[in-house]
Amino acid sequence: MTADFGTPLGPGAEFDLIRALIGRWGPLAVGIGDDAAVVDLPRGERLVVSTDAAVEHVHFRREWLSVPEIGYRAVAAALSDLAAMAATPRGVLISLVVADPAASELAQLADGIGEAVRDAGTVVRGGNVARGHELGITTTVLGSVYAPLTRSGARPGDVLAVTGALGGPAAALRALRSGTAPAEPVRSRFVRPRPRLAEARWLAARGAVACVDLSDGLAGDASHLAAASAVGLEVEVERVPVFAGASGDDALAGGEEYELLIASRAPIDDAAFAERFGIPLTVIGRVTERDSGIRFTRAGRRVAAPRAYDHFSG
Amino acid sequence: MTADFGTPLGPGAEFDLIRALIGRWGPLAVGIGDDAAVVDLPRGERLVVSTDAAVEHVHFRREWLSVPEIGYRAVAAALSDLAAMAATPRGVLISLVVADPAASELAQLADGIGEAVRDAGTVVRGGNVARGHELGITTTVLGSVYAPLTRSGARPGDVLAVTGALGGPAAALRALRSGTAPAEPVRSRFVRPRPRLAEARWLAARGAVACVDLSDGLAGDASHLAAASAVGLEVEVERVPVFAGASGDDALAGGEEYELLIASRAPIDDAAFAERFGIPLTVIGRVTERDSGIRFTRAGRRVAAPRAYDHFSG
Repeated sequence: MTADFGTPLGPGAEFDLIRALIGRWGPLAVGIGDDAAVVDLPRGERLVVSTDAAVEHVHFRREWLSVPEIGYRAVAAALSDLAAMAATPRGVLISLVVADPAASELAQLADGIGEAVRDAGTVVRGGNVARGHELGITTTVLGSVYAPLTRSGARPGDVLAVTGALGGPAAALRALRSGTAPAEPVRSRFVRPRPRLAEARWLAARGAVACVDLSDGLAGDASHLAAASAVGLEVEVERVPVFAGASGDDALAGGEEYELLIASRAPIDDAAFAERFGIPLTVIGRVTERDSGIRFTRAGRRVAAPRAYDHFSG
Repeated sequence: MTADFGTPLGPGAEFDLIRALIGRWGPLAVGIGDDAAVVDLPRGERLVVSTDAAVEHVHFRREWLSVPEIGYRAVAAALSDLAAMAATPRGVLISLVVADPAASELAQLADGIGEAVRDAGTVVRGGNVARGHELGITTTVLGSVYAPLTRSGARPGDVLAVTGALGGPAAALRALRSGTAPAEPVRSRFVRPRPRLAEARWLAARGAVACVDLSDGLAGDASHLAAASAVGLEVEVERVPVFAGASGDDALAGGEEYELLIASRAPIDDAAFAERFGIPLTVIGRVTERDSGIRFTRAGRRVAAPRAYDHFSG
């Protein structure tokens, strides 16, 4: 049942597909050809692993994305989970479900996947292909890190900050759902998410003590971080950076961001961050007492919490 | 987009599902609740990882298996890839696609998955759930081993041996496809494959130098092992052990076995193996000169190669 990408491989229809994928990936496909891949991690670093599915009709629609974009987005979103742990990627495994594996679609998907893998400086270490009615990409990401960032490290008094500007993916999704084409910078935020891998490692080395990626949006993931750390959070909504073309609600409640929310015990050096990465790092609030809930405030007064994004309810 | 199984988790429909799964798994769900799982491997051991998909209509049909059996089989088959490397399981990640996540089906699936995980002495370290028309389980298996067995270690003069008796799954599939119920021992071989994890470690410690699991059947996987090792193989078909109720063709060409084919440089101690594991270990041939192809012989005379099993062509 296994179908590892690899060389040299024996005969068979599935292996022909896999050979085609490997050909497409070239040097991005590494160490493949056994029942499982052997991965060596730097001595002393811990393994970090996550799996993430992108399924047609659930996570995307064909009308919204080209086939290479489907591949790119699936893999970049999965890699974002490694960013949240401040881990360095050590490889991905790709499990594909496609309607017609012989069609050019598989090669296009491979191209998008390969581009996301290359952009993250990592490699493909295995996977499999199956036939099905709904296009699906399940990506397993492997990373390593000496001291993982977690969701549970926040303590009262830490500052809360976010990378980048928020709301772009939500604005793009709103346009796509209403049948209009999103403007390009906004569309790009949805189509080509950037896992903040180097940014997370930089932050972890400078006082970040807890982190979550904003796949469920700021409101949703703030509640996950608060729950995991058993703390309260105060988010000053007027400080939340809004992506050009998005609304304040998009920024607070929209999902699929893949920016990072961090709690930092050290002061935030936003200027050094922006100079290094070309995106803002913005203090948006602070960690409050144990189990005190999440308060959204504007000019010091409490405002209603935005409805959290839940892609599964869609 | 991520939905790690974990506690404590924030609110949301997807997280409710995940809480339900964790409740079902109890102590089998370990260390979950961050964007990714941190896994510590024994010092000096190498990470071994593989991913495997079981998709409705491609890898199984509902009429053939109960829902718990679908879960069990998917995970056991994935774990078999660790057996082929002589690795010890260190955890699995489970990515599920289900039509109606609220239905009891998810709990039944979780029960079967949990049973396979427990039987292998391992744990669930993460995963996700998505909605889709075709039931799908993508299992990523993590293992570790000091010296992995590979497909490429066979050299001329090694003996070839297989664990267990072959053909049971093929005989079961034949019955199922013709609409008849397979007899119980044969059905069980298809429904509840046993990854030969302890068996592989035992063999690796006693002279096995190459290994492949028989997911593609003896004829198919022998060709993969020969290709990877750049050797020829001779298989004496009359020595291949046939499972009671299966035919010789089932044993040679049928897939979905999850027994192991090994090349061993040391003599095979079949009696010690059988006493330890309660299944046979049988010498079925030998490794021949470099790139000399695969010869199937009966009473010393060459016979036609069986058609290799290719589950993707179905």
